[in-house]
Amino acid sequence: MKQKVLPLLVFQTDFTYLEGAVASMYGVVRSVDMKTEIITATHELPQYDIWSASYRLQQYAGFWPKGTVFVSVVDPGVGTSRKACAAYTKDGYYIITPDNGTLTHVQREHGIEEIREIDETRNRLPSTRGTSVFHGRDLFGYCAAKLAAGKITFEETGKPYSTDEIVTLPVETAVLDNGVIRGIIEIDDPNFGNLWTNIPFALMQEAGFVCGEDVHVTIRNNDEIVYDRAVRFDMTFGNVPKGEDILYNNELMNVSFAVSQGSFKNKYGLGFGPDIKVEIRKVNGNE
Amino acid sequence: MKQKVLPLLVFQTDFTYLEGAVASMYGVVRSVDMKTEIITATHELPQYDIWSASYRLQQYAGFWPKGTVFVSVVDPGVGTSRKACAAYTKDGYYIITPDNGTLTHVQREHGIEEIREIDETRNRLPSTRGTSVFHGRDLFGYCAAKLAAGKITFEETGKPYSTDEIVTLPVETAVLDNGVIRGIIEIDDPNFGNLWTNIPFALMQEAGFVCGEDVHVTIRNNDEIVYDRAVRFDMTFGNVPKGEDILYNNELMNVSFAVSQGSFKNKYGLGFGPDIKVEIRKVNGNE
Amino acid sequence: MKQKVLPLLVFQTDFTYLEGAVASMYGVVRSVDMKTEIITATHELPQYDIWSASYRLQQYAGFWPKGTVFVSVVDPGVGTSRKACAAYTKDGYYIITPDNGTLTHVQREHGIEEIREIDETRNRLPSTRGTSVFHGRDLFGYCAAKLAAGKITFEETGKPYSTDEIVTLPVETAVLDNGVIRGIIEIDDPNFGNLWTNIPFALMQEAGFVCGEDVHVTIRNNDEIVYDRAVRFDMTFGNVPKGEDILYNNELMNVSFAVSQGSFKNKYGLGFGPDIKVEIRKVNGNE
Repeated sequence: MKQKVLPLLVFQTDFTYLEGAVASMYGVVRSVDMKTEIITATHELPQYDIWSASYRLQQYAGFWPKGTVFVSVVDPGVGTSRKACAAYTKDGYYIITPDNGTLTHVQREHGIEEIREIDETRNRLPSTRGTSVFHGRDLFGYCAAKLAAGKITFEETGKPYSTDEIVTLPVETAVLDNGVIRGIIEIDDPNFGNLWTNIPFALMQEAGFVCGEDVHVTIRNNDEIVYDRAVRFDMTFGNVPKGEDILYNNELMNVSFAVSQGSFKNKYGLGFGPDIKVEIRKVNGNE
Repeated sequence: MKQKVLPLLVFQTDFTYLEGAVASMYGVVRSVDMKTEIITATHELPQYDIWSASYRLQQYAGFWPKGTVFVSVVDPGVGTSRKACAAYTKDGYYIITPDNGTLTHVQREHGIEEIREIDETRNRLPSTRGTSVFHGRDLFGYCAAKLAAGKITFEETGKPYSTDEIVTLPVETAVLDNGVIRGIIEIDDPNFGNLWTNIPFALMQEAGFVCGEDVHVTIRNNDEIVYDRAVRFDMTFGNVPKGEDILYNNELMNVSFAVSQGSFKNKYGLGFGPDIKVEIRKVNGNE
Repeated sequence: MKQKVLPLLVFQTDFTYLEGAVASMYGVVRSVDMKTEIITATHELPQYDIWSASYRLQQYAGFWPKGTVFVSVVDPGVGTSRKACAAYTKDGYYIITPDNGTLTHVQREHGIEEIREIDETRNRLPSTRGTSVFHGRDLFGYCAAKLAAGKITFEETGKPYSTDEIVTLPVETAVLDNGVIRGIIEIDDPNFGNLWTNIPFALMQEAGFVCGEDVHVTIRNNDEIVYDRAVRFDMTFGNVPKGEDILYNNELMNVSFAVSQGSFKNKYGLGFGPDIKVEIRKVNGNE
């Protein structure tokens, strides 16, 4: 038995509000049904950045009630042969998205129980058949609205295909080896300038690092050492003076770099990705 | 018989979310009625840019259910003698806006059946009579909320005036002449950096241009040639490699310039307007 | 008797929409209750800027219906000993916020009748006990949702403390002395580039300045004179030609500086704060 679909649509895209795209997409939803709730998760995802779409979806999905319908549209391949899909997670969420890597983190953390290719002949806004570039409005938004409003079932979105065929991006896992943790900067907090690693707080504890004490951190950007020093490991950036670096336990229980009331990202000119490697070890006696 | 007014307000302004203007305006709506839905179309329109306000409204209005009440506030003449108006379109939408050119595209594409000057003595938030600079909050938002909530009828917004008196901006139409199409860059997609012409896809077909083949495009910026080459004419930017130019059929069924996963606008340093002229013809034998 | 709590939450933060923070916070609200309305006042407050949070809240709160629950999260001290509080204003609004100065303007203009320290043991999202950096999601959003949904009473948010203990930032009051008004630039309108003084329009009238006539304005930035000239005092920037300076009566009935369809802020390179002093006097005979 699947979770009952809620009349609740949560949207994330890279459309911005600079033109009329969001308003067109939401208008289609409201034309399908007057009552389904429309929530903006964000329309400010980095352009064409499927990795960020995948990460963000997983970051917030679990805080919503089971049965919520998420719509994610970061879709550089719109109008080409990439599949448009409807996914159902093992813990009861619905996701409507291009199958282009956007499901990577959700599949890993929640698990995908069932996936279907959206049937364009039945679940596309009929009046838009002449254009190929705005599936957020014409296909994903329209199909998701019909699903959330109960006008179609999940099974009626389209034919199922194997969850093994879901397109995924490569993901790295942090490791603890001989007292040293090795991981990467997995994503940024582009607002506050924090950098989030893929290193779980639990792994720090397993390695014996203690909150409130310093640890020694080495960061390599394409093998070049860009950070190599002792830094405070603590629960919140508020525990160090303004302007000071900190390695803290972030909102997803992974450790992250911050400058208290500043931007770690700008201070050290760092981004994120598999080439930004992080090593954490005990401080030397002299530090 | 007019379309029944829906309890559904869709807002577009140039206010941004940088200060408390939007929150004040929406508060007034909620104080009028607890149930009317408030939708943000956008608060990121370019400042004072009535052309963009007019274009965007027309871009998305038709995707909403009939009876929706749109509120558009790009209002450089606030507090002066420009009219505040309530318009009813021939296809059943309500629009509350300064009559300053914002109705240009909607009048052209949907038609305006009836227009009324908002009566400030009855439809302005009484507590705000001492200030003249925020009609979004004090007049448009308040009057629209009363209309959408059924507290006043469209007729009670104010006295009618002739639709011939509606302020409009000049609009250009593309022409096909002896196998050559001449138009302009009418607006941009400021997010993805695409440039949208006023040339309908249908006119391309009428001229005999075939999707998937190259056409020869000349763009003149104030009579100076800034683009003069063969370019692929196709249905989606996904059909050319990343970084390549394309002339594609956009979401409104007009042809547009894009760089696949790039910005045509930045690549060629172009904006939009009647001085950016576009010519499309068959490719030469040598191209 | 307190005002009945409305199922209406109005959020302001400095989170932006660049990542998943807002979506996580709103998800928690929806998980508490499916019906409480979620309104975005803004997520674009300047980072860590408690002064702006305080000013904006007061700017728009009074336009909402009594019983509205406001949530403000500008919280550089998250996870430290600063109090998390629930406030009830003398005119019937509820505010959930860190007690870090955010209540300054509301306390001054509306008055705070009662304040309580949120009890984390009962009103924090239980699953998030291991992290200390996202009280918007884990504490403020969750507690406010329970309050707005009627799952707890205001009294059940936590234990009361004295309103005398509320943290406040210093606020300056404009004075009229011998025909000269002295005040400060209290805040900006960062969108349109206007600068808002703390000088009430009523004080201008008391001093005998007449709308439509020039006044002489001197602005000092840290005691250096940066503006010293006659400027039109009027009701709206629309009353002077594009590009011209004006001192106008703003939407909160304080006088403000603008350039018609331009940015006063950029033109004169000015910010806001107690060091930007404004003097207004009668024009000299020669001006």
